[in-house]
Amino acid sequence: MGVVLNLDGKRAQASVARLVELTAPEMARVNELILSKAGSDVELIPELAKHLIDSGGKRLRPMVTLAAAQMFGYSGEAHVKLATSVEFMHTATLLHDDVVDESDLRRGRKTARMIWGNQASVLVGDFLLGQAFRMMVDVGLLEALDILSGAACIIAEGEVMQLGVAKNLDTTEDDYLAVIKAKTAALFSAAAEVGPVVADASRSDRAALRSYGTNLGLAFQLVDDALDYGGKSSDLGKNVGDDFREGKVTLPVILSYRRGSAEERAFWKSAIEENECDDAALEKAIGIMNKNGAIGDTIGRARHFGEIARDALAPLKPSPQKDALLDVIDFCISRVT
Amino acid sequence: MGVVLNLDGKRAQASVARLVELTAPEMARVNELILSKAGSDVELIPELAKHLIDSGGKRLRPMVTLAAAQMFGYSGEAHVKLATSVEFMHTATLLHDDVVDESDLRRGRKTARMIWGNQASVLVGDFLLGQAFRMMVDVGLLEALDILSGAACIIAEGEVMQLGVAKNLDTTEDDYLAVIKAKTAALFSAAAEVGPVVADASRSDRAALRSYGTNLGLAFQLVDDALDYGGKSSDLGKNVGDDFREGKVTLPVILSYRRGSAEERAFWKSAIEENECDDAALEKAIGIMNKNGAIGDTIGRARHFGEIARDALAPLKPSPQKDALLDVIDFCISRVT
Repeated sequence: MGVVLNLDGKRAQASVARLVELTAPEMARVNELILSKAGSDVELIPELAKHLIDSGGKRLRPMVTLAAAQMFGYSGEAHVKLATSVEFMHTATLLHDDVVDESDLRRGRKTARMIWGNQASVLVGDFLLGQAFRMMVDVGLLEALDILSGAACIIAEGEVMQLGVAKNLDTTEDDYLAVIKAKTAALFSAAAEVGPVVADASRSDRAALRSYGTNLGLAFQLVDDALDYGGKSSDLGKNVGDDFREGKVTLPVILSYRRGSAEERAFWKSAIEENECDDAALEKAIGIMNKNGAIGDTIGRARHFGEIARDALAPLKPSPQKDALLDVIDFCISRVT
Repeated sequence: MGVVLNLDGKRAQASVARLVELTAPEMARVNELILSKAGSDVELIPELAKHLIDSGGKRLRPMVTLAAAQMFGYSGEAHVKLATSVEFMHTATLLHDDVVDESDLRRGRKTARMIWGNQASVLVGDFLLGQAFRMMVDVGLLEALDILSGAACIIAEGEVMQLGVAKNLDTTEDDYLAVIKAKTAALFSAAAEVGPVVADASRSDRAALRSYGTNLGLAFQLVDDALDYGGKSSDLGKNVGDDFREGKVTLPVILSYRRGSAEERAFWKSAIEENECDDAALEKAIGIMNKNGAIGDTIGRARHFGEIARDALAPLKPSPQKDALLDVIDFCISRVT
């Protein structure tokens, strides 16, 4: 399992290690299921799916589902199917995202749309979403179906909201939080909540995991946004500047624009709205952000949501799974600090 | 309700009239549900959805679901939700199709992607698919969920298969039938089968409706393919030549290419594979097709599947719903003859 390491590699590795260890036997079954359900007689589907599977995602979301089910004593096999559904929903979203954003690279590799075209990316995304629903139906738990199908709608709404935010520097921090709550946090939330649901845990346990997932997702996305501008370091795994070159209005940009001088605002206008986003512009953008504290404060906001996620789990009795899920919060933040 | 009329308007109108009449009160509720479930605080979603809703589809699929449920004495409200889900699945497919095919027009109106862009079309399609699943989950019938989520996968597989067929004149009739069975017939099949499922009808009744739907769908698609080359008339509602200009390999092309002289095959190669598809080429294509019987035989194949659909319903006891569903077969064929 590839873990994305940044800056302080060892610490990040250690941080997610307990989750990886606790879910290893079930993740092996998730990985088998991913391969078998991405299969199709239509050659292009497994070919494209394999590209995605090999491209080294962390599989954080399915691990969260598995740990959240274990935490409440679940011992069946349904959580493996639900975890796989969650990962397929995520993969389908990535495929459609790359088409929508016209992205050329993801995690340093060519995107599927660059190799097989937009058409295949749209359609294989639809296929994986269909397979995700089939696996949920196979589990047969209407409450889990309700949570995950609800998340599918919210994610799509979030993506549409993001179109409105694109290249729009009038976007407020609140607007932006609404977007990432829908497009990123909703799936983390659903991934966490279906754990206690499948284990038939209490309503308050479900609410705790749901809140954990939502806030973990918000922290995760904000850290990702900060990483795109180099975080606090210049030596990072992620390709710095992808969001900038796509004219994405993320929190570091929002804070930096609002806090900027007239000259700086004019710079952001030309960069984000008029695509003046070459390497020199990126360097200038990072310089401004560091000067006015936009990166540091984006990470601060991420910590804030991380704290809420931590408190959401506070009432639950101690367990290795609880510790592992708390580690994930630190892992997310540690990617950037 | 707009009914697409061709050539012999009165006969086509008469043909679907019984289905329209039988399902009118429930279709009013389907239409309400379509409007409410296409709603979202994200403005672009209802705006784009309204464009689709107003663009005058026949809503044949949800009417089939409603009649198929009535036929077995169903009197609840679940069939209205399932019928709406079916229509949303269809609409989501159209949105993604237009992106994949790079279509400018659908039913003579600008496609959503031409007005709001590919991005919005992909994402609103995802939203509608999500809403379709939520409505199915709301009904809570796992068997219906199984049928419809299975259809979602098969449709996506069919669309991917179609990419392989595009501009490929080596496509056989069998290859092509496999494509349209997945991309078109699977949804008709699911739409028909969930009727008896919601009414808790017998396994043989479900099999009858499933077979009816599959074969109706095949006939429907083949007639559509023939209409694109003008059917047997030149005075038709549909824009003649859309498939030709997109280089689509449909059955009339497959038959015409296989039956053609060396000179004609060279013509098809240049038209379909090299985009030599102006109005003069279209006129020549139609001329060749009429000469070698490709249009007439495509309609003949459609009739063949129409007969199978008719026989599928033969064992069922007489009812106004059965008559109405049989009328639909005639209606489909009558669009072109």
